Parts: sequence; C-alpha cells; structure tokens
Amino acid sequence: MNVNTESVKGKMKALRKLRPEKGLDLVEVSIPQVKPLEVLIKVIKRAICGTDLHIYKWDEWSANRLKPPVTTGHEFYGEIVEVGSEVKHYKVGDTVTAEMHVVCYQCYQCRTSKAHLCENVVILGVDGDGAFADYIAVPEINLWRVPKEIDPEWAAIYDPFGNAVHTVMAGETVGKTFLILGGGPIGIAAIPVAKAAGASLVILTEVSEYRKNLSKIMGADYVLDPSKEDVVAKVKELTHGEGVDVVLEMSGHPAAIEQGFRCIKKAGRYSLLGIPAKPITIDFAKDIIFPGIQLQGINGRRMFETWYQMDQLLISGKVNLKPLITHHFKMENYKEAFEIGLLGNAGKIILE
Amino acid sequence: MNVNTESVKGKMKALRKLRPEKGLDLVEVSIPQVKPLEVLIKVIKRAICGTDLHIYKWDEWSANRLKPPVTTGHEFYGEIVEVGSEVKHYKVGDTVTAEMHVVCYQCYQCRTSKAHLCENVVILGVDGDGAFADYIAVPEINLWRVPKEIDPEWAAIYDPFGNAVHTVMAGETVGKTFLILGGGPIGIAAIPVAKAAGASLVILTEVSEYRKNLSKIMGADYVLDPSKEDVVAKVKELTHGEGVDVVLEMSGHPAAIEQGFRCIKKAGRYSLLGIPAKPITIDFAKDIIFPGIQLQGINGRRMFETWYQMDQLLISGKVNLKPLITHHFKMENYKEAFEIGLLGNAGKIILE
Amino acid sequence: MNVNTESVKGKMKALRKLRPEKGLDLVEVSIPQVKPLEVLIKVIKRAICGTDLHIYKWDEWSANRLKPPVTTGHEFYGEIVEVGSEVKHYKVGDTVTAEMHVVCYQCYQCRTSKAHLCENVVILGVDGDGAFADYIAVPEINLWRVPKEIDPEWAAIYDPFGNAVHTVMAGETVGKTFLILGGGPIGIAAIPVAKAAGASLVILTEVSEYRKNLSKIMGADYVLDPSKEDVVAKVKELTHGEGVDVVLEMSGHPAAIEQGFRCIKKAGRYSLLGIPAKPITIDFAKDIIFPGIQLQGINGRRMFETWYQMDQLLISGKVNLKPLITHHFKMENYKEAFEIGLLGNAGKIILE
Amino acid sequence: MNVNTESVKGKMKALRKLRPEKGLDLVEVSIPQVKPLEVLIKVIKRAICGTDLHIYKWDEWSANRLKPPVTTGHEFYGEIVEVGSEVKHYKVGDTVTAEMHVVCYQCYQCRTSKAHLCENVVILGVDGDGAFADYIAVPEINLWRVPKEIDPEWAAIYDPFGNAVHTVMAGETVGKTFLILGGGPIGIAAIPVAKAAGASLVILTEVSEYRKNLSKIMGADYVLDPSKEDVVAKVKELTHGEGVDVVLEMSGHPAAIEQGFRCIKKAGRYSLLGIPAKPITIDFAKDIIFPGIQLQGINGRRMFETWYQMDQLLISGKVNLKPLITHHFKMENYKEAFEIGLLGNAGKIILE
Repeated sequence: MNVNTESVKGKMKALRKLRPEKGLDLVEVSIPQVKPLEVLIKVIKRAICGTDLHIYKWDEWSANRLKPPVTTGHEFYGEIVEVGSEVKHYKVGDTVTAEMHVVCYQCYQCRTSKAHLCENVVILGVDGDGAFADYIAVPEINLWRVPKEIDPEWAAIYDPFGNAVHTVMAGETVGKTFLILGGGPIGIAAIPVAKAAGASLVILTEVSEYRKNLSKIMGADYVLDPSKEDVVAKVKELTHGEGVDVVLEMSGHPAAIEQGFRCIKKAGRYSLLGIPAKPITIDFAKDIIFPGIQLQGINGRRMFETWYQMDQLLISGKVNLKPLITHHFKMENYKEAFEIGLLGNAGKIILE
Repeated sequence: MNVNTESVKGKMKALRKLRPEKGLDLVEVSIPQVKPLEVLIKVIKRAICGTDLHIYKWDEWSANRLKPPVTTGHEFYGEIVEVGSEVKHYKVGDTVTAEMHVVCYQCYQCRTSKAHLCENVVILGVDGDGAFADYIAVPEINLWRVPKEIDPEWAAIYDPFGNAVHTVMAGETVGKTFLILGGGPIGIAAIPVAKAAGASLVILTEVSEYRKNLSKIMGADYVLDPSKEDVVAKVKELTHGEGVDVVLEMSGHPAAIEQGFRCIKKAGRYSLLGIPAKPITIDFAKDIIFPGIQLQGINGRRMFETWYQMDQLLISGKVNLKPLITHHFKMENYKEAFEIGLLGNAGKIILE
Repeated sequence: MNVNTESVKGKMKALRKLRPEKGLDLVEVSIPQVKPLEVLIKVIKRAICGTDLHIYKWDEWSANRLKPPVTTGHEFYGEIVEVGSEVKHYKVGDTVTAEMHVVCYQCYQCRTSKAHLCENVVILGVDGDGAFADYIAVPEINLWRVPKEIDPEWAAIYDPFGNAVHTVMAGETVGKTFLILGGGPIGIAAIPVAKAAGASLVILTEVSEYRKNLSKIMGADYVLDPSKEDVVAKVKELTHGEGVDVVLEMSGHPAAIEQGFRCIKKAGRYSLLGIPAKPITIDFAKDIIFPGIQLQGINGRRMFETWYQMDQLLISGKVNLKPLITHHFKMENYKEAFEIGLLGNAGKIILE
Repeated sequence: MNVNTESVKGKMKALRKLRPEKGLDLVEVSIPQVKPLEVLIKVIKRAICGTDLHIYKWDEWSANRLKPPVTTGHEFYGEIVEVGSEVKHYKVGDTVTAEMHVVCYQCYQCRTSKAHLCENVVILGVDGDGAFADYIAVPEINLWRVPKEIDPEWAAIYDPFGNAVHTVMAGETVGKTFLILGGGPIGIAAIPVAKAAGASLVILTEVSEYRKNLSKIMGADYVLDPSKEDVVAKVKELTHGEGVDVVLEMSGHPAAIEQGFRCIKKAGRYSLLGIPAKPITIDFAKDIIFPGIQLQGINGRRMFETWYQMDQLLISGKVNLKPLITHHFKMENYKEAFEIGLLGNAGKIILE
C-alpha cells in the first residue's frame, strides 16, 4: 500500500492523433489521473514503432482501428511519480517500462499462459492513450522494472525487441541454422538474439543498403540481397544443400515468404511475424504437408516469459542493442523523426 | 540368428502395375528371395489405400512416381515364413504387419527422431514391390509384431490408422475440442482416436451420406454437412462462440481448409494431412499471424511412437475399428474392390 | 463496473481455529467487507480437505503455518451476492468456485505461467479467512465460473480434483500405463482422469478395504493391496515385464515410493504429490540416473489450465465424480464430519 | 554397396583387460573381421574416460560388468579402411568417430527416440572389444562422419562431450542461470556448452585447484570452492536471492547434491549425470514437491540429436575444446597416462 504519495496534477504535452487524417499534433492535455491499480509514469525515452508510422500516415489499418483523439506511442522508458491506492509492488522513483497490451486476465487465452492473444486486449498508444506524452498511466500488472544495468534507451525498445525474442524463442534454437527474411528493426534485432540463443548460422535477406549494413554490424553471418543474388541457391550452398532449420519471416513480402518455403529443411520451423498486405497463395502439399513443416503465427510478446529473456540477454552482455538505435530527436521535432522513419534508412528512432 | 529356416521358393500371385496406364494385373511372379536382414511374410490380409486407387487410375501423381512393373499394396497382415541370416528379433510363425516406409537411418531426419520424413525413403508398394501378393519381403527393422489380442484385419490397416493417430497426437488432446474436415477412412478413424485421447468434443464435416452415417457409428459427437448447413455458425454455436482447439484437415478441399480457419480458436492447432490438388490462397495476417495459429504438415506415422499408441488404443479397448472395415473381397476379385473404392461408398476394403 | 449492488452486512457463522490446539469452533463473526477487486460469495457447498484434517488435529505443520484466529476451509461452491467497485467480469447471481491460492502476479513464477508456485502465495482457509462460513470474500481474478451442466458438489471439490488433474496431466498420458500409489480422495480422483486422458491401464495400490472398493467403483483396472500382494511382481506381470510408463505418488509412504521406483519403465515419469513425513533414502544411480527417470514435484493446480481441463472432463461426461462424494453433513455437525474424515473410511465429505 | 574393398588381415596391438584384476595389458591380437553391416576403422586418436579408469582399477562396478578378455576404450577418432558387404553410406577413407552404444533398434526405448536407454545395449570397450587398439570394427548405423572443420582430437572425445551436451540440453537453456556441481572433464565441458546454448550465468563448484583453473579457462563466470566458501550463500547472492534455474550434477557427491537442492529456484530443472556411490537421503516434501522441482536422470547421448548439436557447436566456433585436452601419450605409455588420470590433475588425456 502506498498511502503517502501526492497526486500529480496539471497539464502536459502529448503527441496525439486528433482527426482521421495524416499527421499528428503535439498538444497540451491534462496529466492522467491514476486509478487504484495504476501508476503514473514520467516518460523519459520513447521510440517510434512501425505501427506509429502507420498511424502517422493514416493507412487503412489505422483508419479501421483508431478512434481519435488518442495519444500515440507504446515504446517507452520512464520513472514512476505516483502510485494508485491499491498498488503493492512498485513505488515512486522506480524506473520502468511496460507491456502495453492491457489484457483481461479472464478469457481463455489469458488464463492459459497466452495473454498475448487476449480476446479483450486494449493496446495503450493505439486503443487508449499512449507514451508519446510527458506522462502516462499504466496498470501495475503491466509494469516491468528496469534493472540499473540496462541502458534506458534499450528499455525503451523492449516492445519490438520482445517481438524479436518471442519469434526467435518460439521453438528450438541451439545449434540450429536461421534464415531471417527482412531487415527492419525487428528482423535486425533477431540477429543477435538468435546467436545468443545458440544459432549456429544466421542469414538475413534485405534489399536496402542501409539495413544490409546495419545487419552486418549486428552480427549476421551472411546478408543476402534478393535483388542481386539467388537467395535460395546461396542458402542451400551455406547449409550443405539441406536448407535452414528455422525461417523467421519479418518482411510480409510474398516473394520473401515464397523464398522461405524454398529454403527450409524438412520438419523445419517457419515463424511468421511480418504482416503481408494481401492473401498469399501456397502449395500446401509440396510446401507444408509432405515436408512436415511447422508454420506458426507470432503476435506480441509472451507475458512475461519474453521479458525475463530480454533482461537476461542484455544483462549477461550476450546481446548489444546499441548499433540498432540510430537516431535521436526531441519530441517537438517529431515530424522530422517520423519522416526519417518512413524513408526506412533508420534503425530505432528515439524521442527524448 | 536363425540358421535352420529353409528358403521358400517357387511362384506366387501378385497384383502388379505392368504398364503406364489404368488398371492392374494379377499375374504370377517368383517369390522374393530374402536378404540377410529381411524376412519373408505370407500375406493373409491386405487393405486398399487411397494411394492404391490413385495408382489404379494412373493419375498424374502415379505417372510421376511409379516405375512399372511393380507389385502394389502397402497395408497388410501376415505370418513370417522365412528369416534372413542376420535377423535377430523375429522367427518363423510370428504374426506381423510393417511400416512400409523403408528409411535410410543415416540422414538428418532419420537420426533425429523423424524417420517418417527420411530424405531417402523407399515405399514398398509404390517404389518397391508391395503386399498385394501371396508373399512379401520386408526388412526386419520395419516389422511390427501383432499381439494376439488384435484382430488381424485391424493389423492390416495400421498404415492408415497410423495416419489418423499421428495427426490426432501431433499436439495436445485432453479436454480439447476437435473439428475433423473430411470423412474418408482416415478422417473417420480419427474420431475414436481423438475421443480415446481425451477430446471433449469431436465434430466431423462430410457430404457423403454413406460416410456421414459411418462417422456417427464411429462416435462423432456431431456430423455436419457443408452442402446443407452453415458449418462455421454451427461450430461456433457448439463451442460457445470460441471455435475449436484443434482442426484436423483430412479432405484436401480448399473450401474445407477455409472453413477450418474460420472455426479455429486463437492459438489453435491446425494439422494438415489431406493433400490439396492445387495451391491455396490464405490470408496470413488474419488467419495465422494475429490469432497465433500453429499450422503443421503431417506425413506418415512416427516410427514407432505411433505404432505403440495404436497397440495401446486397440488392446485397451478404447478404440474399436470394426465398423470401419466395410468390405471383403478375394484378391482375384480385385477389380470389383477397386471400383467400389473409387465410388467412395466404403470404409476400408479388405483383400483376403 | 457494478454500481448498483448493495453491500451485504451483518453477522454469519464461521468454523474457525481460535486457539493453537486441537479442534475448531463454530462461531459468529462479521460478514467480510469486499474490497474493490473482490466479490462476496454466499457459500452453498463446502468440502473437507486432508489439509483441514491436519488443521483440526493441530499437527506440527499446522502449528508452524497457521496464525489463529482464522476461518478454515478452501473447497467450496457458492453464489455471488456482492461485487466490489472495480469488478468487471462477474455479477451478483453468478455461481462460482475459486482457486484459493491468492498469488502476487509479480514474482518470477507468477509471470512465467507457474503462478501455482508463487513466491508470495496466501492460501484462503489457511493463511487467510476461508470458506467454512456462510460467506467468503474472494478476489475476482481467483474466481471460476461454474457452468450449469456441472453438479454444485463437483464444483465444491475442484481444489482436490484439480490436484488429481494437474498430476495426471503433468506429462504424456495417451496410451500410457499408470500406477497410482495411494487411494485417498486425490488418488482415487486420478483414476477416471487418467482413463479419460487416454491411459491404457490404471493400477492403484491401497490397503484400506473401503478405499480399495471405491477405487474399483471409480474405474481402476486393478487395485493391488501391498499388505497382501507382491505389488512389484504384479505390476511387472500386467505390463509384460516392462513396468509402467507413469507413476503417480499420492500416498507419501516411503514403502510406496520405493515400489514406484521398482515398477517404473526406463525414461518413465514419476510424479510426486503425496507429502512424505520424513526424508527418504534413494539410490540415485540405480533408480534415477541409469534408467533416465523424470521425477517431478507437483503442487496445487495450474492457473488456470487445470481448471479448463476439469470443466471439459466433467461437461463431456468423461469423468463422473458422483461415487467419490460419500458423506454429507450440516456445518453444525462438523465434529462428526471431521472424525469420519480422520478415520479414513470416506471419499469426499460435504458440509452443506 | 562396396564391392572392391579388400579385407584387412593380420595382427594388431590392443590394450586389453585379460584377467579380473587391476591393470591392462598391451598385447597382439588378430585384426577384427567385419560383418556385412560393419566397417573396420584404423584408430588414430583415443581418449581415456573415467569408465576406463574404473576398469583399470578393477573396482566393484567393473568386476560386476566386464567379462575379460576384452579390448578397452570407447572414445576415438579414425579412418575407415574396410567396409562390410551391406554397408551403403560410408566408404574407405572416410574419417569417423562412433556412438559406442550398440543398440537393438527393436525395444520400446529404441523405437521411441530413446535408444540411449536401449534395454539390450552392448557397449564397445566395456561389453565388447573397443578402441584402445590399432583397429576396431563398428556397425555402420553407429558411425558418425567427422567433418573436416573439426579437429580429430575433438572428434575423439565426442562421447564425453556428448554427455555434457545431452545434460545441458535436457531442458530450456536460453537466458537461464546454471550451477554445475563438479569440475571433472564432463562438468568442465558443460561450461562452454551452456554458454553457447544461451545461459546467462554459469557457476561451477570444485575443490581441485587444477580443475578450478581449467574451469575458469573454459569460461565459467564463477568457480566456487565448497571447501573454502559458502556455496549456497554465494549462489543466492549471484542470483538476487532466487537461486539458479538449472542445476547440473556432475560430481556424484552427496554434499554437492544437497547443495544443488539448496541453490535451485522453484520449478527448476535438476539434471543428474554424476553417479553417487551410495543411496542418498532427500527431503521429498521440502526439496522436490513443494518447490515443483524437475529431477531428471541423464544417461549417454541422444542418438543422434546430441551428435548434430556437437557438430554445430564446434563448427560454428561457439565451443572451443582445446583447453580441455591437457595430455598426450603414445599407446605404449598407457600406464603413465592412466596413473595421471587417476590422480585427477588432468582434463582429457589422448592416446595417439
């Protein structure tokens, strides 16, 4: 119980989607009032997700999902400044990040260790007010304490880093060969995770020079460019003709998905995280049934197995995220930050 | 070591594909000579598989795979009449059936508990001489001893029964709800297996009246006819709106596969055994990634986990295959047997 | 949100441990006041657990654990009569039972799908006020909705039934042979669970005639009496000399534990639920290491995988708990009920 | 089929146990004649196992197991010089090592992916003639091809390295904290394996200065000396009071086994490989049941999952075994080699 905390009141800046159209506005709003089981966090670092870029552009997905006005942003690091009356495990001054999927803890998925697939999820920064603001209110049960050993900027990207860890860890990893399709920030983050998790070979495919270079810096054994090389032939060569044990699909591109089926070993694991824009045509017999492939959809982060894994990978020094964080902006320069994000020549972009 | 067995010599009848065209011929050939690690089996019961029907019809798959002349048939029960010089674990008089996938025991799949996906498999009755004959030679390592408690006709269908058991058992079963798409012999065999394995609800979809009736006899809780009912609505109703935990695809039909995606619960298991004739278009985002579906290709039978499971399910009385065996013919009346098989109004057809 | 419920106030009867000595007292106390995330339940059925017998007797474990005064009882079924201000998923009139392990949802165990091993657990009826009263207050997150199809008395014993289901389901079950050591209520409940979960053979050992008889009624294939039979020899005979796949230890007796090691197959699963009073001497080399045994401690029920399994096993009709409930008493006749429980000639005893 | 190989005939040197007493003799015997499914291997490197030291000393275990005369040794690397008439996958000139457990491929364990627990195993070098000779005959199905990238001396110790890999890999590893009890060659080999497999912390306990030093060289994060430090207190300190996720017991010492129970986290994995000389007394309730511990016996190496893992760990450079190989002797100086082995101040000892 935390009886003595004073309520934080007043106004704050927030980056909000106000109207159903392109763009965001940096406006002044009231600081959120915490409920009994919530804490109020002063946000110190924020990071831009691909989802935020969709919201900024106001594409079809955003138009169907968001109900403006809403404060955006779901990747952050901050410090607790107020705790609700029933909060038991955190106190003012604790440094935290949070799982922004607010789940119900009563549906079948929540009650069988799959809360990341909750039937009633509310995502803060999408369905509710998010972290691109001076303060954010978050339920205690969603908080993740950030140990001192972890760089605050790394803590700010636990959400996408968690996507990478969840995808890599969705099956066996030790002594396995990996093909990662797509070098966006999550695909790139998956490189050191796979290696730390025992992968004996990590190949990544990407066409952007910027991202190819970043993938090499982050430790990929081979970076193949599908616009210049025969990916399937090269993967087969690198795996003695057998193909890889694990394919991680991080691009959503139909051509890449097809390459994955051509490059995977019999009984292999094919984990899908990238979201294709359209349906895809697959030869079930040849590509899944006869070779006994395990195709799996990956969504969110395991609550909270993935979070412990992230801590351990970073604290032990097995994964270094420093090169992945390529840009820093003040929140008021958000337009410049979002435009760079849309161009794609970036790793993770931090909003201070 | 078996030093005293005499060699069985002479001629025998065999049902062979002699030419690349429709039909089979019942001809006289030499009894096979056993190699040091093989046994010779007098075949007592045989059963017709869907694969045999393809071979009989000489469809595209058969034309690409078979190299006539070859003796057909891979489902059987028989008695050992001769053992090779290096055979150690079987003797003349033992009653057996066999896994007809002759595998290499040296490839990656064979050496990591996935011999059913062997890179170098030879299937007797398809790639080599099979069981539609008076005698067959089979490697010792492929034999399965048939306990006395098991009906010889049930032993003769361990191959397709094993497909059903392998598919049901490819994930959790206890207290799970199942949807089986397609009421061919394997789909129907999966009904009592799922129930014996703890399924709390088994729904099967099928259009043929004959097979719908047989599915009910074999214990399906509900048999839905997609030509007459709204399968998705009915499955949702039967599962309190949640969908089923497990879908077993046994039909290969695109419409059924689509229904499976509509009927499956988040994080559900979707096991594919039926072979679609053509590629299929799937909405990866909506049908696999967001709901976290596990899609898996199933092939053959686990060697020999599945076989032990079959023994236990039958010996314990948990599964009764009697209603599934609907027709009996003498081998010389094979044409009639195959024509009935092609019409589809049959469970399993035995050739004596 | 439930804004219109009126607060239930006044006095109620409760069966309490008032002093650190043998016995319980039925006294009048205030009806509990619900907190924002709790509900108040009118208790309709209660059941006596072995733990309650320990508390009644005031043995060493009780003396170390309990801090009187406390209301006892953790097995019950009831109806919600009041909901706290933040309760979202339940309403007045809902029929429920509950997981009485109130866990923290913040420790490593809670956050990695093992809340049944919470580092900070408070057990209602042991560490906090329990269900042997007219009313009980329980956190919403601990509630389990009781479907209409389920008999209220069965719902009242979900706690021990859940121990049985958790133990049976702690590894593979389908087509496996089981040996259950000890025919107390949990051991007996494990019989139909194992069979429903696909066990091909269930053997139970017990010395009490009453319990041996009840075990047979509940479906054991064989009930062996270690005081009259050579259990090891008989188990070996029933398993063709191989031993069983799974041993469930439900007795806590050193002699039974030793028999388990003698009866288990190589690579077998040995699940321990019964609590031995003293340390036990084991030959690690011969009994665990060379045969590759998996020995596992089982505690509580998985939250809430086990609870879904219980619902499914009962609703589907696969498990029938009726014979297990052998006695009924009014709460005021609790002394008689506890004395019968201590004698052991009983299945589950209900307090109305 | 290999029709043109000539038979290798004549005499060779072999290190044999000739009489039931201490010591071995280097004598001349006939080169083995290969059977149809065997190959003859010219042995190039051999390594001394702890088992060989037991055989040399002729302790109780050896006296019960061995039937002299027999050629010792089961760790080796060599080149095929002759292949049997039915051998299909290897040819003269191939460099190989071998799994020396010759298993039946017909028992329940062999046929369910647990051949390392075969009911009918014959171990070459213990039950049959082994590798401490110029030549050895080995069944084709037991061979393991040694890739060029792997140092022949590393290939010669795949047997004990495989014990280490099997033990580490018997559960989850990524982001887990490990305590290894005992710094013999297998315990020390487990250090880099655990780290390559994603362990975030590896602590080893050992009293010998030689082995403590070697453990540090091989990458242990902490090496604790139970004769000088409070192991339990230190492990708790290093794990923030929680204990480790995984304990690997490699010593067989009762005091170490007890320390393992004191240091392990709830729900932890406790893998036992070290062979205690006598039965051990355990508090089942406190040490296994309440904390939900998974205690598992480990034996041999998985055939051949472990072998692929070894290849991948070494070829990828994730594990370096060089520091572990500390001594080299010619086979004729075997006495000196065995005496150094018995003293314990050694990693692996190679016989050229």
